[in-house]
Amino acid sequence: MSLKRKDFLGLYNVSKEEINEILDTAVAMKDILTRTVKKVPTLRGKTVINLFYEPSTRTKFSFNLAAKRLSADVMSISKSSSSIAKGESLLDTAKTMEVMGADVVVIRHSAPGAAKFLAENISASVLNAGDGAHAHPTQALLDIYSIKEKLGEIAGLKVLIVGDIAHSRVARSNIWGLNKLGAEVSVAGPQTLMPREIEKMDVNVYTDLDQALENVDVVNILRIQMERQERGLFPSIREYREIYGMNAERLERIGKNAMIMHPGPMNRGIEIESSVADSPQSVITEQVKNGVAIRMALLYLLAGREIDNEDLN
Amino acid sequence: MSLKRKDFLGLYNVSKEEINEILDTAVAMKDILTRTVKKVPTLRGKTVINLFYEPSTRTKFSFNLAAKRLSADVMSISKSSSSIAKGESLLDTAKTMEVMGADVVVIRHSAPGAAKFLAENISASVLNAGDGAHAHPTQALLDIYSIKEKLGEIAGLKVLIVGDIAHSRVARSNIWGLNKLGAEVSVAGPQTLMPREIEKMDVNVYTDLDQALENVDVVNILRIQMERQERGLFPSIREYREIYGMNAERLERIGKNAMIMHPGPMNRGIEIESSVADSPQSVITEQVKNGVAIRMALLYLLAGREIDNEDLN
Amino acid sequence: MSLKRKDFLGLYNVSKEEINEILDTAVAMKDILTRTVKKVPTLRGKTVINLFYEPSTRTKFSFNLAAKRLSADVMSISKSSSSIAKGESLLDTAKTMEVMGADVVVIRHSAPGAAKFLAENISASVLNAGDGAHAHPTQALLDIYSIKEKLGEIAGLKVLIVGDIAHSRVARSNIWGLNKLGAEVSVAGPQTLMPREIEKMDVNVYTDLDQALENVDVVNILRIQMERQERGLFPSIREYREIYGMNAERLERIGKNAMIMHPGPMNRGIEIESSVADSPQSVITEQVKNGVAIRMALLYLLAGREIDNEDLN
Repeated sequence: MSLKRKDFLGLYNVSKEEINEILDTAVAMKDILTRTVKKVPTLRGKTVINLFYEPSTRTKFSFNLAAKRLSADVMSISKSSSSIAKGESLLDTAKTMEVMGADVVVIRHSAPGAAKFLAENISASVLNAGDGAHAHPTQALLDIYSIKEKLGEIAGLKVLIVGDIAHSRVARSNIWGLNKLGAEVSVAGPQTLMPREIEKMDVNVYTDLDQALENVDVVNILRIQMERQERGLFPSIREYREIYGMNAERLERIGKNAMIMHPGPMNRGIEIESSVADSPQSVITEQVKNGVAIRMALLYLLAGREIDNEDLN
Repeated sequence: MSLKRKDFLGLYNVSKEEINEILDTAVAMKDILTRTVKKVPTLRGKTVINLFYEPSTRTKFSFNLAAKRLSADVMSISKSSSSIAKGESLLDTAKTMEVMGADVVVIRHSAPGAAKFLAENISASVLNAGDGAHAHPTQALLDIYSIKEKLGEIAGLKVLIVGDIAHSRVARSNIWGLNKLGAEVSVAGPQTLMPREIEKMDVNVYTDLDQALENVDVVNILRIQMERQERGLFPSIREYREIYGMNAERLERIGKNAMIMHPGPMNRGIEIESSVADSPQSVITEQVKNGVAIRMALLYLLAGREIDNEDLN
Repeated sequence: MSLKRKDFLGLYNVSKEEINEILDTAVAMKDILTRTVKKVPTLRGKTVINLFYEPSTRTKFSFNLAAKRLSADVMSISKSSSSIAKGESLLDTAKTMEVMGADVVVIRHSAPGAAKFLAENISASVLNAGDGAHAHPTQALLDIYSIKEKLGEIAGLKVLIVGDIAHSRVARSNIWGLNKLGAEVSVAGPQTLMPREIEKMDVNVYTDLDQALENVDVVNILRIQMERQERGLFPSIREYREIYGMNAERLERIGKNAMIMHPGPMNRGIEIESSVADSPQSVITEQVKNGVAIRMALLYLLAGREIDNEDLN
């Protein structure tokens, strides 16, 4: 096992080799998910903490299930139900978890850098489940896994990400990972929803979706946040759907071989039409399944280290 | 095993034979609950999801415990703590759970038909834990189990259900199940709390409780919802207690052999007096225990199918 | 095993021998926490219920983890997410849990005596996780364990508790336990935050912290509740910090051998300076770890009884 990290914070500082190791491990994990008894004792006695400072069903659920499939004990702490209200700092909370015996702390937080901050200050492994608009590496890895599973190699593929690039940790993490594996990444969306640092991000930038769709292998459609509209960042839901929504007509134009992706949860009828979401080209449900496999792979690679070392003795 | 259903949605479409099979399985499950180690590995590696769109302590808790007794992994999603707030549809949420590996989705929802809708649209087993005023089959089964355990055969018994029949899924499911097993079912309550379809429900209808109590083997007392009073559906709490409350005097009148039931949680001093709830004729606490056994039986019959098939090979 | 109690409610009615038995058992439990596989099958098939009527992260989490380390099934019910809102009484809720199969009910409640009330009315074991300002015995035991671990014997030690003594269940439980083991206990804090019954509590009382610090082996600093200030019980946060805050200067004065404790969560910069909290004399993080061991010990002593009896047969 070459992954020798204590933490997994984002794809920006991860090598191509490490990404491939995680993807390969996830293949083995996905195999477990197809068995009748979908459970292995690999992480028995290990403790995984889900520390979620932002609401989440599917990511928390996915980590939860991934930990249970590996027989780890898992506990979830959500902002609302905890003494975070009492004003305890993120660091004191995490240190408490570590001292109680957490092997891996999975953290989601609205502040970019929250995961890195934790990683530098506790000795337990830290796994970033989304920090502000910064990074969401497990989502990017499951996206990459899903592409590879369907289309084979990533290198040379043309991947288009559509929507609110500026506020999207999913977009950032996908761009880092896909570029490392040699894909050609493009983004499409309103100018107002492009990040200021877009020039440095090594992507092709489109504001015209139809132009962007002209030559793509993969279209990854981001969830639109309704509240951005109120803040004037795009004209109206109706106009957004018109200009950037993925509909049947656009689906036909990209051809039968192009893949449709969405990180979920979808706003059906806004950024994506149901006919597109449920089309044979869509791998949206497969993405969800692959998410469990990717998270199992990362939990195993982070928390299983000691066990492996002992096996050698 | 004759139960060949993917889903368990209500007693309206379940045969007498199937009900008896579930009750027999629950006897074996209840035996497990009396052991020192109250746990069997039957559903190890299986995943049960509690998807609760309505608040619930005891039903959710009972399903949770039932799943754990069978060594299944169980995860609960409640409306408040989830991204349901983000506007994701029931179906997308359930599909996500299924794709992640749910074997059984236990659903409670305020909309009648929600369980059926899910069952038709996902391939995981769906277990109805209450859908609006429509059905609450596990409650009815545990009620029937409790009667059978104490009084032997159901056929020929006179069972009276007291209270708000119109809004009660417990009443509807009990009526379906008890009629199938040959009981004679009566209901008593204010005219304003009788369902419009009462004529077709194959029950004797009373608005005078004392008259209804004249010849009964079992009295099942429903919880009164205070908010109905505000909507003018019954005169006042005090009058309700007077006219429909089960008190010591009424208890004496029905005789020592009649059983008292309540699905809980009770409004002590309103629909039921404490002296009645805690009397030797009351099986209210036994109902709670039987609920775990019934839910174990259903989880086993739904999720254990594949395992059984494999055992045959 | 000499602990023959059904319940564990507080240190006021527990003998010195029993306290020592719990501390000794906790030593064995802490050993489990240092293993690679931090889990034993001791309580497999047993069910622990966390019934929390007050918000709590660390205590609930600690009990949760303790139960899982012993392979018990554990379920948590918090006030907000339950039908407590529906008006069900504490007793009916607890009886329901018991009937469903709870072996131990861990209860936190704002009402002093809530744990005792439950213990007298259900046959499952009740473990007090804090009842109003009355008692918090597991916190006191982990504090005593932490002192003993570092300083050896408790008898003869000078222990000072600083802060809001009046409203502190931690202070009360520590005073009972430490006095029983022969320590000399003092308290320091504003006169307005001293309990009315202080004369009967067998402690030295100081309102001048610096005077109290003159001869101490252990300083246990309580969390200050900001809302007390609004009610006029102490002048201002700034003044409190000045007069009762544990800072670097005071730390130096008590000498290198004195221990610093805090039950957490800390208000860093108010009742305790970060330089003190993170100093080598501080055992604050060790307290958290010891909390898991103490709770494992109590769960084992309460819920493991039957198993032991069976082993004898």
